[in-house]
Amino acid sequence: MDTVAIVGVGLIGGSFALALRMAGFKGRIVGVSSQRTTDEAVKRGVIDEALPMEAACAAADLIYLAGPIHSILTTIPRLDEFAREGALVTDAGSTKQKIAMAGARLRRVQFLGGHPMAGKESRGVTAAEERLFEGRPYLLTPNAAEELETAAASGFVEWIKRIGALPRVMAPAEHDRIVAHSSHLPQLLSTALSGTLGRHPDSELIRAAAGPGLVDSTRLALSGWEIWRDILDTNQAPILDALDRFINDMQALRTRYANGELEADFIQGKEFAQRLRNSR
Amino acid sequence: MDTVAIVGVGLIGGSFALALRMAGFKGRIVGVSSQRTTDEAVKRGVIDEALPMEAACAAADLIYLAGPIHSILTTIPRLDEFAREGALVTDAGSTKQKIAMAGARLRRVQFLGGHPMAGKESRGVTAAEERLFEGRPYLLTPNAAEELETAAASGFVEWIKRIGALPRVMAPAEHDRIVAHSSHLPQLLSTALSGTLGRHPDSELIRAAAGPGLVDSTRLALSGWEIWRDILDTNQAPILDALDRFINDMQALRTRYANGELEADFIQGKEFAQRLRNSR
Repeated sequence: MDTVAIVGVGLIGGSFALALRMAGFKGRIVGVSSQRTTDEAVKRGVIDEALPMEAACAAADLIYLAGPIHSILTTIPRLDEFAREGALVTDAGSTKQKIAMAGARLRRVQFLGGHPMAGKESRGVTAAEERLFEGRPYLLTPNAAEELETAAASGFVEWIKRIGALPRVMAPAEHDRIVAHSSHLPQLLSTALSGTLGRHPDSELIRAAAGPGLVDSTRLALSGWEIWRDILDTNQAPILDALDRFINDMQALRTRYANGELEADFIQGKEFAQRLRNSR
Repeated sequence: MDTVAIVGVGLIGGSFALALRMAGFKGRIVGVSSQRTTDEAVKRGVIDEALPMEAACAAADLIYLAGPIHSILTTIPRLDEFAREGALVTDAGSTKQKIAMAGARLRRVQFLGGHPMAGKESRGVTAAEERLFEGRPYLLTPNAAEELETAAASGFVEWIKRIGALPRVMAPAEHDRIVAHSSHLPQLLSTALSGTLGRHPDSELIRAAAGPGLVDSTRLALSGWEIWRDILDTNQAPILDALDRFINDMQALRTRYANGELEADFIQGKEFAQRLRNSR
């Protein structure tokens, strides 16, 4: 791997570039983004230079698509035209089925979808961190397991390990079902909770009485619609399923509370929350 | 204020003692807890000495009840017997109506309920921190506003300010309605989410794919039943109301998502989450 093209030099793309450097990557890193972003990225040493899309993709062995889902979906079909023959194309989009379908149609390059489970409140290249992926799952979503066995793919997986992330393989449809629960459901709960409290007639008193628990619970609600629109558009059925499952559980919990007590709910909830932490 | 008795030297009681010292309190701080806890508390300089309940309360100008709600409720009615005449009794229980009713019956001492909106995952005196209350609301719940005007009460409010907390006054019933939304609802959502995911057939994959958002969203689910049993027992009607409000909002959000989009939900949710942070 000599040249990496980062298409979309934001928090994720920028952090991936910094992480590669930290892990010892000696090749060239080129970036495709707005002028303002690439100026900042060059100044910060995140990328070596800015190039237009075509030139960047023609030069790269690894094309890393880190923009919003809709821009990944528009970029992929154009890559056969101008990407370097045999390059590996990957992406960091938060839903995978539609992207994997687009990737499967590419002929001159190999496509392998991915999804690093990392992020934070602040966005953009100024928020990029070389350790953003450290200790975090990095989901890889080949259409077929053999796709991981090419030299390009196994080289990429090696870099994922070197940057400290934990590669895990799942099929695109399975990925979308899982993240509907692990990521999209928590987002919608935080957004809904924040909305419920904001619309409450005593919203000002609720705000004035907020402790650290409420601050944690509303952190995801800070996420922007410009990111979530694409996620919600491309994963509706699994998310509706996760919502239904949760709403049913909340109703059952409400009934148990009205008629008795919630000890078993607290024990089960704590058990999963601990399992989540012990495994990290 | 010369002598403070901390009854229940755990995270909150221990942190209050440390905070008083940090803020310049020169008097004596005595602690009432199990032998093991008070040994640890003396060793760490959290309290000056351990005393039995009666002796501690007979010596103190300020009696700070920081145990679980049920133990606060059993202690209060006994205080007229052995507390020093004219002492101020306060508590740090998470619900206030039942406690305020018990406090209103005291004759030889003044009662003023309180609720510091601070806490963290770890518990016990070993987790106590002198800055735990800094920048956090400290809710005060007099039965009548005049109760704040006694010398003892206004002295106590001064100490709350000196430890960096933000005193806010509300009636006990109002307090319980507000925290049902700001604290008890987020707790039950985190417990329910953690339960939903833990019971999911793909629970292991969900765990393996967890990012930082899910870790935040399940933090409250780590809380112990031994604390929450008392809270849920003493605030059922306001909590059921908060649950109903939230479940209705989730169902409406689900319908909007199935039939259209959620832009307004994201904007409203973000607005409250930001308001919460800007005001701190």
